This record gives sequence, C-alpha cells and structure tokens, in this order.
Amino acid sequence: MTTQPAEPAPRRGRGRPGHDQAAVLRAAVELFNRKGYDATSMGDLAKELGLTKPAIYHHVTGKEQLLGQALDDALDELTAVVTEAFREQTGRSAYERLREVVRRSVEVLVAHQPSVTLLLRVRGNSEVELAALERRRWLDDRLAALVTDAVAEGALRDDVPATLVSRLLFGMVNSLVEWYRPDGAYDRAMVADAVTAIAFDGLARHETRV
Amino acid sequence: MTTQPAEPAPRRGRGRPGHDQAAVLRAAVELFNRKGYDATSMGDLAKELGLTKPAIYHHVTGKEQLLGQALDDALDELTAVVTEAFREQTGRSAYERLREVVRRSVEVLVAHQPSVTLLLRVRGNSEVELAALERRRWLDDRLAALVTDAVAEGALRDDVPATLVSRLLFGMVNSLVEWYRPDGAYDRAMVADAVTAIAFDGLARHETRV
Repeated sequence: MTTQPAEPAPRRGRGRPGHDQAAVLRAAVELFNRKGYDATSMGDLAKELGLTKPAIYHHVTGKEQLLGQALDDALDELTAVVTEAFREQTGRSAYERLREVVRRSVEVLVAHQPSVTLLLRVRGNSEVELAALERRRWLDDRLAALVTDAVAEGALRDDVPATLVSRLLFGMVNSLVEWYRPDGAYDRAMVADAVTAIAFDGLARHETRV
Repeated sequence: MTTQPAEPAPRRGRGRPGHDQAAVLRAAVELFNRKGYDATSMGDLAKELGLTKPAIYHHVTGKEQLLGQALDDALDELTAVVTEAFREQTGRSAYERLREVVRRSVEVLVAHQPSVTLLLRVRGNSEVELAALERRRWLDDRLAALVTDAVAEGALRDDVPATLVSRLLFGMVNSLVEWYRPDGAYDRAMVADAVTAIAFDGLARHETRV
C-alpha cells in the first residue's frame, strides 16, 4: 500500500470516477492508520482519492462503514485460523495446533497488515469498535484455551500462567504490524519461522540455559 | 491513572488553579493515549482538568511541549537501561547483559506505561515526533548490537538474523503496554520473569522441542 494518492483510474459511464469500493476501502484504511481514525474526516478521504465529498458518498455511507469493513476483514481471517485449530482437534496435539496457529497468524498479519494494524489500535470509541473488541476477546479466549490444552498435555512449560503466555506470544506476533515491510529484508516464511523458533524453542542455546 | 477528571486541588495565591506541571502532563498523556494526540486539542485538555483554556496556557506553551516532555520521560528511562548495559561491558557476557536489558525494559514499561504507550504510537508527524523516532532508532540499533554480540559469543541461536531477533524480542516486551494493568493479576516481577523465560528458554519443554 502506498502513501501516495492513487493514479486516477479511467472514468466509467455517467461521469462517475473510476474508484471502486475496494480502492476506497484501501485508501481509507491507509489514511486511518496514518492519521488516526478519529482525526480522519470523509473530506480528508475524498481529497486523498481525488474525489469531491459528495462523490465519495456514492460509494459509502460514512467512515464508520469503512472502519467496520476493515475490522471485519482482519477479524474474519484471524477467526478462520483459530476456528480451524479447534475443528481439527482429532489427531493433532494442542501443541502442534498452537504452533500452526502462530504460523498462520503471522501469515494473516503480513497479508492483511493494514486492516490488522487498524484492528490492533481500536479503543472502543463506538459501537463498531466495541463489536470488534468483543470478537478480539473471543479470539484471545480461544488462544488462551489452546495454550492451556498444550500445557495440560505436558508439551509446554507450566511455570507461567496460560493467559500470560498467550498475551506475550501473540504480543510478539502482533508486534509485526509495527515494523514489518513487505519489501524489506525478511519474507513471510522467514518471519513465521523466526517467531515459532523463538517462542517455542527460545533464543538461548541449550548449554547456556539458566 | 484515572479517566475521571481530577478533583479540583486547593487554589494557591493569586487565584491560580492548583494544578502543577506534573498533573497537567499526566492528564495530557492519558488523554493523548485515549483520544489520539492529533485528535486532542488544548481545549479538550483544559476541560479534562477543569481549567479554562487561557488558564492552561499558564502551565504550558501548547500540546507539543507536553508531547515532548512525555516522550523524553519514556526515552530517558529506556536510554538509561541501554546505556548501562554497554557501560558494564567488562565482566558480564553480552547474553547476561541482554537478559538484564529485557528485564529492566519490562520494569520501565510497567512503571512508565502511559509515556511509553505514547512513544510506541508516535508516527513522525512533527519535529518533536521525528526527534523521538530518531532516539528510538538509536535504542533499536544498540539492542540489535547487543543481540549480535550475544550470538557471536555463542550464547544465542544463530539461525535467525540478529535484527529480526531484536525486533521480535522487544516486540514481545513492548506489547505489554497494550494489555498490562497495574491492578491486574500479574505483578511486575512475574511479567519480567515470564518474558525472559519465554524469550530465552522458549515455551516448549525440552523433550518436545522439534
């Protein structure tokens, strides 16, 4: 996603600008992340897209609709990852499923970085944000349950409370949105490998563990 | 820190309100974190403190001064931790000093959570923010150097690039500001122990390491 205004797309019939819903949503999410959602007006968004303010209301009812769509995008992806981990309970250990959830979460964060960034900054200032926080809480609860199961099966250390493990583990995963650059030195697989290696096996070589 | 307006303090001479600089700063940081810095006006801050807008200018020249003070508070503490780790190079291994930096960073984050939260959300929208980002970059560079030294000593795994290790390690530490509550279930020492245990020794029990 670029911070430059998009090139004007070819105009379609009836003199409408050629911006489709997806392009408006992309620009809105980028702007919300850059300026902050509360500080962004529909006028700012229209300007970013090179549209008049009336023209942008042809596409959306307001900025809250765009926020809701972006948060749903992030939440739907993360919910799919977590739901799958619980669906395939038979055959795979909780430990294996937790490693898989961590790896797939990294992939979702990298592939949907703008909308996940927005999700992680939500503070609950509106109905849309409160609904998103409730979905996040559901995810957090499922993840903590998976950690608890992995501890119960004897695969994970039991000297740190499962909810604290879950917070710190996904804190490390979520920190990606703050610094990961798709055109940077690390590709998605490299980051996923690094996160799972550090989280599950630790940084220290065995002989120096204290 | 409460989200309620403070009780009006006793008035001092000359009819000045009894808010001192520190109380104004605390209220400002809390408001910046809650509403976003760009969306917060001096009028909002005056209202939060129960002051008139002219009265608040008795204490500060504007919101950028408050932002600068809060960012300096966080940066001074973190800089002290990192500087000390490099000062005592003799006698202690890089690995020991890195573990100590992680532990002390957790303590700073917990003790200065509001100003560190603000620091971690800075995007570089003004001179003050750009200066803070430059100080953050210096810290990041020193931390990455310490990780590199610990790898070179043979104490840390060498299959993940040092800059990536540093990002993820301090990503986990920094995630604290998003969820840590001083009155919650985990005290500072418990969180510091958990972070160092997970980061350096990993979550997996030895026999299940893959």
